Amino acid sequence: MSLDAAAKAGVLVEAIPYVRRFAGRVVVVKYGGNALAASTLPAEPEPASAATASPARRVVESDGVLGHFAEDVALLRAVGVLPVVVHGGGPQIGDLMTRLGKTPAFHEGLRVTDAETLDIARMVLVGKVNRDIVTALNVCGALAVGCSGEDAGFITAAERDPALGYVGDVVSVDPTLIEHLLQEGLVPVVATIGADAAGQAYNINADTVAGAIAEALSAEKLVFLTDVTGVRSDRDDPTSVLQSITADGLEDLVATGAVGDGMVPKARACAHAVRHGVRSAHVLDGRVPHSLLLELLTDEGIGTMVVEP
Amino acid sequence: MSLDAAAKAGVLVEAIPYVRRFAGRVVVVKYGGNALAASTLPAEPEPASAATASPARRVVESDGVLGHFAEDVALLRAVGVLPVVVHGGGPQIGDLMTRLGKTPAFHEGLRVTDAETLDIARMVLVGKVNRDIVTALNVCGALAVGCSGEDAGFITAAERDPALGYVGDVVSVDPTLIEHLLQEGLVPVVATIGADAAGQAYNINADTVAGAIAEALSAEKLVFLTDVTGVRSDRDDPTSVLQSITADGLEDLVATGAVGDGMVPKARACAHAVRHGVRSAHVLDGRVPHSLLLELLTDEGIGTMVVEP
Amino acid sequence: MSLDAAAKAGVLVEAIPYVRRFAGRVVVVKYGGNALAASTLPAEPEPASAATASPARRVVESDGVLGHFAEDVALLRAVGVLPVVVHGGGPQIGDLMTRLGKTPAFHEGLRVTDAETLDIARMVLVGKVNRDIVTALNVCGALAVGCSGEDAGFITAAERDPALGYVGDVVSVDPTLIEHLLQEGLVPVVATIGADAAGQAYNINADTVAGAIAEALSAEKLVFLTDVTGVRSDRDDPTSVLQSITADGLEDLVATGAVGDGMVPKARACAHAVRHGVRSAHVLDGRVPHSLLLELLTDEGIGTMVVEP
Amino acid sequence: MSLDAAAKAGVLVEAIPYVRRFAGRVVVVKYGGNALAASTLPAEPEPASAATASPARRVVESDGVLGHFAEDVALLRAVGVLPVVVHGGGPQIGDLMTRLGKTPAFHEGLRVTDAETLDIARMVLVGKVNRDIVTALNVCGALAVGCSGEDAGFITAAERDPALGYVGDVVSVDPTLIEHLLQEGLVPVVATIGADAAGQAYNINADTVAGAIAEALSAEKLVFLTDVTGVRSDRDDPTSVLQSITADGLEDLVATGAVGDGMVPKARACAHAVRHGVRSAHVLDGRVPHSLLLELLTDEGIGTMVVEP
Amino acid sequence: MSLDAAAKAGVLVEAIPYVRRFAGRVVVVKYGGNALAASTLPAEPEPASAATASPARRVVESDGVLGHFAEDVALLRAVGVLPVVVHGGGPQIGDLMTRLGKTPAFHEGLRVTDAETLDIARMVLVGKVNRDIVTALNVCGALAVGCSGEDAGFITAAERDPALGYVGDVVSVDPTLIEHLLQEGLVPVVATIGADAAGQAYNINADTVAGAIAEALSAEKLVFLTDVTGVRSDRDDPTSVLQSITADGLEDLVATGAVGDGMVPKARACAHAVRHGVRSAHVLDGRVPHSLLLELLTDEGIGTMVVEP
Amino acid sequence: MSLDAAAKAGVLVEAIPYVRRFAGRVVVVKYGGNALAASTLPAEPEPASAATASPARRVVESDGVLGHFAEDVALLRAVGVLPVVVHGGGPQIGDLMTRLGKTPAFHEGLRVTDAETLDIARMVLVGKVNRDIVTALNVCGALAVGCSGEDAGFITAAERDPALGYVGDVVSVDPTLIEHLLQEGLVPVVATIGADAAGQAYNINADTVAGAIAEALSAEKLVFLTDVTGVRSDRDDPTSVLQSITADGLEDLVATGAVGDGMVPKARACAHAVRHGVRSAHVLDGRVPHSLLLELLTDEGIGTMVVEP
Repeated sequence: MSLDAAAKAGVLVEAIPYVRRFAGRVVVVKYGGNALAASTLPAEPEPASAATASPARRVVESDGVLGHFAEDVALLRAVGVLPVVVHGGGPQIGDLMTRLGKTPAFHEGLRVTDAETLDIARMVLVGKVNRDIVTALNVCGALAVGCSGEDAGFITAAERDPALGYVGDVVSVDPTLIEHLLQEGLVPVVATIGADAAGQAYNINADTVAGAIAEALSAEKLVFLTDVTGVRSDRDDPTSVLQSITADGLEDLVATGAVGDGMVPKARACAHAVRHGVRSAHVLDGRVPHSLLLELLTDEGIGTMVVEP
Repeated sequence: MSLDAAAKAGVLVEAIPYVRRFAGRVVVVKYGGNALAASTLPAEPEPASAATASPARRVVESDGVLGHFAEDVALLRAVGVLPVVVHGGGPQIGDLMTRLGKTPAFHEGLRVTDAETLDIARMVLVGKVNRDIVTALNVCGALAVGCSGEDAGFITAAERDPALGYVGDVVSVDPTLIEHLLQEGLVPVVATIGADAAGQAYNINADTVAGAIAEALSAEKLVFLTDVTGVRSDRDDPTSVLQSITADGLEDLVATGAVGDGMVPKARACAHAVRHGVRSAHVLDGRVPHSLLLELLTDEGIGTMVVEP
Repeated sequence: MSLDAAAKAGVLVEAIPYVRRFAGRVVVVKYGGNALAASTLPAEPEPASAATASPARRVVESDGVLGHFAEDVALLRAVGVLPVVVHGGGPQIGDLMTRLGKTPAFHEGLRVTDAETLDIARMVLVGKVNRDIVTALNVCGALAVGCSGEDAGFITAAERDPALGYVGDVVSVDPTLIEHLLQEGLVPVVATIGADAAGQAYNINADTVAGAIAEALSAEKLVFLTDVTGVRSDRDDPTSVLQSITADGLEDLVATGAVGDGMVPKARACAHAVRHGVRSAHVLDGRVPHSLLLELLTDEGIGTMVVEP
Repeated sequence: MSLDAAAKAGVLVEAIPYVRRFAGRVVVVKYGGNALAASTLPAEPEPASAATASPARRVVESDGVLGHFAEDVALLRAVGVLPVVVHGGGPQIGDLMTRLGKTPAFHEGLRVTDAETLDIARMVLVGKVNRDIVTALNVCGALAVGCSGEDAGFITAAERDPALGYVGDVVSVDPTLIEHLLQEGLVPVVATIGADAAGQAYNINADTVAGAIAEALSAEKLVFLTDVTGVRSDRDDPTSVLQSITADGLEDLVATGAVGDGMVPKARACAHAVRHGVRSAHVLDGRVPHSLLLELLTDEGIGTMVVEP
Repeated sequence: MSLDAAAKAGVLVEAIPYVRRFAGRVVVVKYGGNALAASTLPAEPEPASAATASPARRVVESDGVLGHFAEDVALLRAVGVLPVVVHGGGPQIGDLMTRLGKTPAFHEGLRVTDAETLDIARMVLVGKVNRDIVTALNVCGALAVGCSGEDAGFITAAERDPALGYVGDVVSVDPTLIEHLLQEGLVPVVATIGADAAGQAYNINADTVAGAIAEALSAEKLVFLTDVTGVRSDRDDPTSVLQSITADGLEDLVATGAVGDGMVPKARACAHAVRHGVRSAHVLDGRVPHSLLLELLTDEGIGTMVVEP
Repeated sequence: MSLDAAAKAGVLVEAIPYVRRFAGRVVVVKYGGNALAASTLPAEPEPASAATASPARRVVESDGVLGHFAEDVALLRAVGVLPVVVHGGGPQIGDLMTRLGKTPAFHEGLRVTDAETLDIARMVLVGKVNRDIVTALNVCGALAVGCSGEDAGFITAAERDPALGYVGDVVSVDPTLIEHLLQEGLVPVVATIGADAAGQAYNINADTVAGAIAEALSAEKLVFLTDVTGVRSDRDDPTSVLQSITADGLEDLVATGAVGDGMVPKARACAHAVRHGVRSAHVLDGRVPHSLLLELLTDEGIGTMVVEP
């Protein structure tokens, strides 16, 4: 792709007012575990000899999905936006459970999290997915710091339902640690584990945590990077993606079932956030290269925007 | 144990000058994985039904070894000392490898770390051991923040030996992140993973990392909490524990083999640290309750002190 | 007295939470003139020849009552408590009056303070007692600064009763000077002379001044170091010392005469202070070595605590 | 005295450049005890009845010598000059000694200071003269704070000669306390008592202390307010007062005896000061009303100026 | 004129309390174009040869009217007063219009300002009169910075009457730029051009601007330097100059016509200012040398003071 | 021009690293008077009636050359670059001289500047051209502040040649005022008048002033916006424009005459600047829309870059 000078100037003239508007503002980005799922956990033990003979270096690949995402976050940070990354890791947790011979149990459709499952989730989220994102950002030049809600006790959680075990709800978010990291020019990357006052950890839905953090930080934007093109008014019609919707409108769609499945917690987090101090919330298609950059810095409409009128 | 008022006053009169001396000074404490090994990783999958019926809460026990350690660190922080905790986790890594059916490989007596082993080590260190220590400190009232050398790229590492795979040496430590956390009243807890500029992670010996961090922070003290009573001049004679030794003297003991096995990296880290700006280094018996508190705030001699004359 | 390590650790584990709680908090300590009376003013002129031949150095004795008091104040300062010392000097004033051939006059039981008596009081309080306390603190390593209410005009006083001459009441306290000294790490030592806008000085009851300063500084504690074991519910029964009492309860004891004589102004100051922003007030036995340290940093009950429920 | 507007404007046009030059600069003023001697210590005990009936209020008289001096200091402070007052009190000390029946002893012409004499000197200087000056300044609107060299240990002293007892020399001056008071807009008033590390106090010559403080503060000016018209080249010829002289020239006058008696320590302090960082030193006639103001803020030549060429 | 020392001291004793009172306070001084009119714009083109042969240097003359004014402003700045100069330039604008062959047009007695007239006014005010005042202040040692209301958009203006063209009213004053300049020790000199949001400039009455700036800065004083002796209660009686008047009283004089012509906008600005946060407003005779200095720093009554009772 | 999303993202990915690199860096831009010449000074007096009837508003036109330039400067400021604008105004000065009937005189090819010419230059530069640029920037959202070297005396100048009259050379630049304005987020716009210590103003070549300011500010870049496409190696060959050249190479071109006429002072300023702390200097074609934006934020090569190897 080659552009002439006038076309380039035009993009810059379009983008810079957005830069000015968003500089110094917090943008919370929920990055889903699905996007990371394909390649990150080694599926099979490699023979030790292979490692010895020619270690196949796990360098972050700059042209993969994570690479594009990390590049966008780093570029936003470079122009003064303050991104906070929140991630899940469902597929990766399931993978390790399987390898450890752990049989999943369910209660009313939700996964029961016993003590061992919690340990596995914590190891995968904090010790694997979080690390991969931190590294990808560091390689792109944005100094990232991983943390979970246990660090400095910043997410206080409580048990959701005894039948679910260590599945938690957010009780409160103390934004101090995240604010300090942002002030020092760092990019916080948050794994969604919280703890209660007694030190008991809980696994919490990442969409919900992303919303709660955005509210605690009075973020400018809350962005969900997903593998769909946006919120549809008709779940079966791909052409029904909405460009913009209000919190009320979104909740109506949930109530009528037009929005369902995995989109429900995202929709609820969007609606709650824009009613509690977040300027706008977005459901974007993370599969579009640089969708984050385009959403923030151009007039392009990518996915669905939720606002409080 | 009940003391009369005069005896209590005597302890305080003895302790307070130490408080004054160490307030605002950094003390790097290496806390070994052995001390944590017994109970922390659930050995057996619990039946899901048990979790559902009566979740056996994994609350940090305040009277265990980790509980005593966390209490000491929190108390030192409360009187203005700036503790930094560095930890390993060898036994816990081995445990998960076994459960995943991973066969260890060795090269000249050292474990070969292929890509999967690195992933396992990272999950255990960052996602399990580090979390347990952070939680224990939070419960004791010291706000702790876990991190690894990948966070903000603060430990740059390089491959030690191609035959060992992803085993790293410390190239440099950038103390900025740790210093910021200390300034904000937080207790940094460091898992000893580093990365190179391309984002490749390495597992690094925790004793070495503790020493390198102490040097980068110009720490007042570097303390190794071990399961021995100190450095012996005769490895077979428990009564030969030295109260004090110089860096030269310590290296002589390594050279003659009087100090051997797991004590060697500790001894080398001690000797290097006191020659590079750390005031003193200590090998303490972590099994003695409150050994850390006694070493810093009383006239008691606990273990061995290394100084540069 | 020798303690084993566990006992020492126990004292520290008990004390440090108090250190954390009181660090940065102001503690106003009234130190009575009686405690100083015995040795401080030279009773007899020494022959000049003796001074010339062998000057008997007036070095502060570290094992006397003043020495113990100064050591406690210095240790509290070392752990971050902000002590302010307020002192009287009645016996010393009487002594100099006698030597100058001055006959005391009384009005309704209170000493009439004519201009010369005021000059004598000022010289003794500011130029003698205050100096001795400042020196004792300096020798213990706490940099002390003596002042009276005339300095920076920080205590504004007014005549109490024309028949009493230059005996004053506190009109207002401007805490700025004391706060500045505290911020700079110094220990203020206050002689209880105030002045009015015209520059007229007044001698003021030291218990009252101590209370007024504690209120103006919103002190954590107001402590009276006395030569009794505490407030008694029955003035004739030494076993009736109260561990704790409310402001109302204390005023009842004054009203019924159970508390009398020299304890009255202390009791009133305690009751007024806890009703005006001071967390607690204490009447301690200054004759118990390190009573100040024990009261602040241990669970020991020393004397009587006054609180507002 | 009534001036027309043009004449007034002329004075202001002359004065303001001096204000600009000296604003923020330290001026150390030695104020002699002689000036205070006449009225300040009540010569005779008043009958108590008189005090009761009609207390003859000791309000600072604004038209006396001390009043004029205090007004000048307050005015200089008001235009941003930073005055530090250092005072002696010889006559007042002698007076109290006499009243206490103390017989003076001398050694080689200097007063022997035994322990009781030291106590008397300290009481008079710190508790009487210092207080009177502080009060006079407060009444003029300059917030003054009295201190002696014992406060915050700011003057370290040592014994001059065993035969003289507690007569001290200045070992060092730590200007921190004085600098803090100046920064807070206060006027320090210094009584010339110092102490050694063991807490032993010494009486020190006030001229010497004034010079040492001026040097420690790198003062703009060191001013001696005396009862003579300046330094004379011929001690018997009142018309030989010098307008200006160098440090060398001044020391020559001392060597030849042209300058003698009480002027010698002043002359030495002036010469030493201008050789150690003080811009100029002055011997002024304190009996001339507002001599301090005229010297600093007009072209008038008052007394003698000492400079280092 | 020669004064004795006592007379000089008297002036200083009178002046310094004013210095203390006004230090750090803002004084807005309107300096009229009439005072500058005589000499500042070269009346006739000089032959180029003259310039080449002997350039008659236009150095600011220190004994002219502008020189005296600049000296006063610089002296006030030197004692900590914060002067802001606002100026007009009517005669100078008229002069350049004449030379450019521009015929004045009037509407209801006011000059119609077409685009070219505005350009001329802007060039003369910003590029000529403002520069001359800045230079005069710089020569007197006060660093001056010229600006107009266009700079940093600090004066927002709007069209007064379409029939008048580019004659503006003050809509709002943003004092930020002026405050920054004052904080940096500079003297702002303001030309009274404002602009609207679209960038259209307007010429605004300088008296009105001076009042609006004084209000926006919550100035201590607003001073009009004029060529009359003050506000008269009878416009035809030079002996009827008022020393003091209230805002109401002044508006009555305007209403009755006692105050007329060019004094009206000044009177209105005075009355409005003292009702909107300015402590006092003054109409002084700028022809009296140092009238500004005398008004601020002496008891002399110069001209008329307007206060809000 | 319409771009697809991928092309837009590509421009942003290209631009943001430049934004990061230049944020907080100073870029001095010389904007020539030629670019402004056409429309800014009204050529003919408009009839007053026209102004009255329908004032043809002189709003800055956003699509003119000045509009594009102002937009670029405002956009650069919005992304954190610190632009400083320096301008000339030769054509506008000549225009006003002509209208005032002033006959130009020359000496060795340079214009003789007598006192009246200086007045005219000052009025045009400071009161006309500077105002127009300030307004254009304000309209684009960058708060601009105009100044000349007389403000705060920031450019000290001296006479170049008596035969030239008031034509000056730069003696020194004090960057304090400009730095303060930059710190406060303002865009300084500098008219190139300087003054000497006596207050005499001089007109100075704007290219030279731009270079001197860039050096005093240790600017990242010095940019000349001209009406040519760059520096040519052959002045007669438009295709010989150089993309990059060293200071030595550029001076060689001046020496050989390849660079001549109006490009000479620009070339000299470029060469001097890159040898005195300015990172690079540029000669750009100001006629290309957004040339400033393209040069700083894209890989496009616009004009000639001068660097010191």
